[in-house]
Amino acid sequence: MERKELVVVALGGNAILQPGQRGTFEEQMENVHVTCEQLAQIVESGDYKIVVTHGNGPQVGNLLLQNEAGKEVAAPMPLFVCGAESQGLIGLMIQQNLGNLLAARGKGDIPIATVVTQVVVDREDPAFANPSKPVGPFYAEDQAKALDEEKGYDVREDAGRGWRRVVPSPDPIEINEKAAIRQLVDARSIVIASGGGGIPVVRENGQLAGVDAVIDKDLAGERLAVDVGATIFMVLTDVEEVKLDYKTPNERGIQRMTVAEAKDFSAQGQFAKGSMEPKVRAAVRFIEHGGERAIITSLDRAVEALAGQAGTTITSS
Amino acid sequence: MERKELVVVALGGNAILQPGQRGTFEEQMENVHVTCEQLAQIVESGDYKIVVTHGNGPQVGNLLLQNEAGKEVAAPMPLFVCGAESQGLIGLMIQQNLGNLLAARGKGDIPIATVVTQVVVDREDPAFANPSKPVGPFYAEDQAKALDEEKGYDVREDAGRGWRRVVPSPDPIEINEKAAIRQLVDARSIVIASGGGGIPVVRENGQLAGVDAVIDKDLAGERLAVDVGATIFMVLTDVEEVKLDYKTPNERGIQRMTVAEAKDFSAQGQFAKGSMEPKVRAAVRFIEHGGERAIITSLDRAVEALAGQAGTTITSS
Repeated sequence: MERKELVVVALGGNAILQPGQRGTFEEQMENVHVTCEQLAQIVESGDYKIVVTHGNGPQVGNLLLQNEAGKEVAAPMPLFVCGAESQGLIGLMIQQNLGNLLAARGKGDIPIATVVTQVVVDREDPAFANPSKPVGPFYAEDQAKALDEEKGYDVREDAGRGWRRVVPSPDPIEINEKAAIRQLVDARSIVIASGGGGIPVVRENGQLAGVDAVIDKDLAGERLAVDVGATIFMVLTDVEEVKLDYKTPNERGIQRMTVAEAKDFSAQGQFAKGSMEPKVRAAVRFIEHGGERAIITSLDRAVEALAGQAGTTITSS
Repeated sequence: MERKELVVVALGGNAILQPGQRGTFEEQMENVHVTCEQLAQIVESGDYKIVVTHGNGPQVGNLLLQNEAGKEVAAPMPLFVCGAESQGLIGLMIQQNLGNLLAARGKGDIPIATVVTQVVVDREDPAFANPSKPVGPFYAEDQAKALDEEKGYDVREDAGRGWRRVVPSPDPIEINEKAAIRQLVDARSIVIASGGGGIPVVRENGQLAGVDAVIDKDLAGERLAVDVGATIFMVLTDVEEVKLDYKTPNERGIQRMTVAEAKDFSAQGQFAKGSMEPKVRAAVRFIEHGGERAIITSLDRAVEALAGQAGTTITSS
């Protein structure tokens, strides 16, 4: 039997919900269908096994709005539980669309499974002392301060648009379900895992407990790639290549960079914080953790990028 | 290596939420913890591999209430999508509690995975012509009739308590993710699957599509048990044994019954519709589909029942 390379594919936000969309199920399914056409091509090429991970920002945002709106009639769930719910929602959309596309291509015998994934973070992570990631609804100042008092939420004024809860964004340490995911991959299943950066949990005396936090999905994707032994980690986003001097007259794409070059560019501030910077950081980490190739590209270039004909590839040297 | 028997365990509603509870995350986690202590004992005995399935009625009920309350601010999801969300929620609670309990018992190396599960039903199932399962919020008559017109919901007056949507409850035909679940079981993982009877889907021209319906969780559990090759199917409920002449002066428990006896009792109307009747039906089907033993008992008797020392056991003869 030929040896297939294992690729962890981290889908960008646009893969599921486009800016300006309300987020109906039908809209999301259409987007996911387009996304899965690319994934199906990768699978159909026969050269790769894939594990798929994805963001969940808009979906968890909607779940939080629904929890808030319904709080008198149904007990609201903690943020990390909304994360688990979103893994069910988004996992269903991806597994159903990808399954349908593979079935139509005569590859319906490849099992696909979404695994509800907890990601371990460190309670001592400095992020817990400095919650910075805004989540959920906007509040008036007095409402926000009441939430702070009643529930201990950290709240912050958000650029004149109102007050929001902020949560920590700690580093992922370990994919808790890595053994099960590896079993599936070894048996040639396609796995959807660690959605939304995973459900954040801390481990104390061997016992896991959920925490309200948001793990960066690309960093969690990198952890997933290492934990399942992938040789390739591919981050899909809305640009074909990582750019230098982005949005200036000198803007130019990078086809290849070494880890050293990527770190230099990052130190120079070439990559936007909270956007391209964590993607490059995740790519660099993957190589430093022993991965062979990290790729950053757009969804529609994914197939070519795997063949080395598009996107930005990061390697050790 | 010794051969372990594979048991599919179908948890009753009380395993997750007790009657009268509001359904906060903390309440549910406490219940699930107690449930998982029993599951951990089964695993710890070393004689069994387990696949766990569960109901989701109260959780989906709450998600529907939240969807309704938040419909102006977030696009409501279809019922079957709420089912997927509930699989994430309940799967997380079970896998985390069971994992913690096994870790405390020195068995933390057994992987546990929740698999988001679609269950195929037949579009021609007579249930689709006769939707009978009430779901979601109560409405005033005019609201209910507006939902009928706007969304095509079937609505029905519910015993003087208001109007509710009713959906079909079709028979499960196939666990769509059975191959992946088997891979995990074969590799000695514990799997949580087909929660809430599974996400109902129809297959047309090889393509799956979600449908708003509710599959009986015990019948889906039976299908799961057959599809993953379990030898034992255990339904946990709130009585220790199946009763004859239930709630009469002649009430007595049944320790063993054959399929023929079970069918006779059922035909005599011994088992309450929508309660014990579908559990016995699921047990009978399991044996008719080639299973060795079906067990109906209460959570706290599960370990003894597996040893043949409690509960009602159904076999072929």
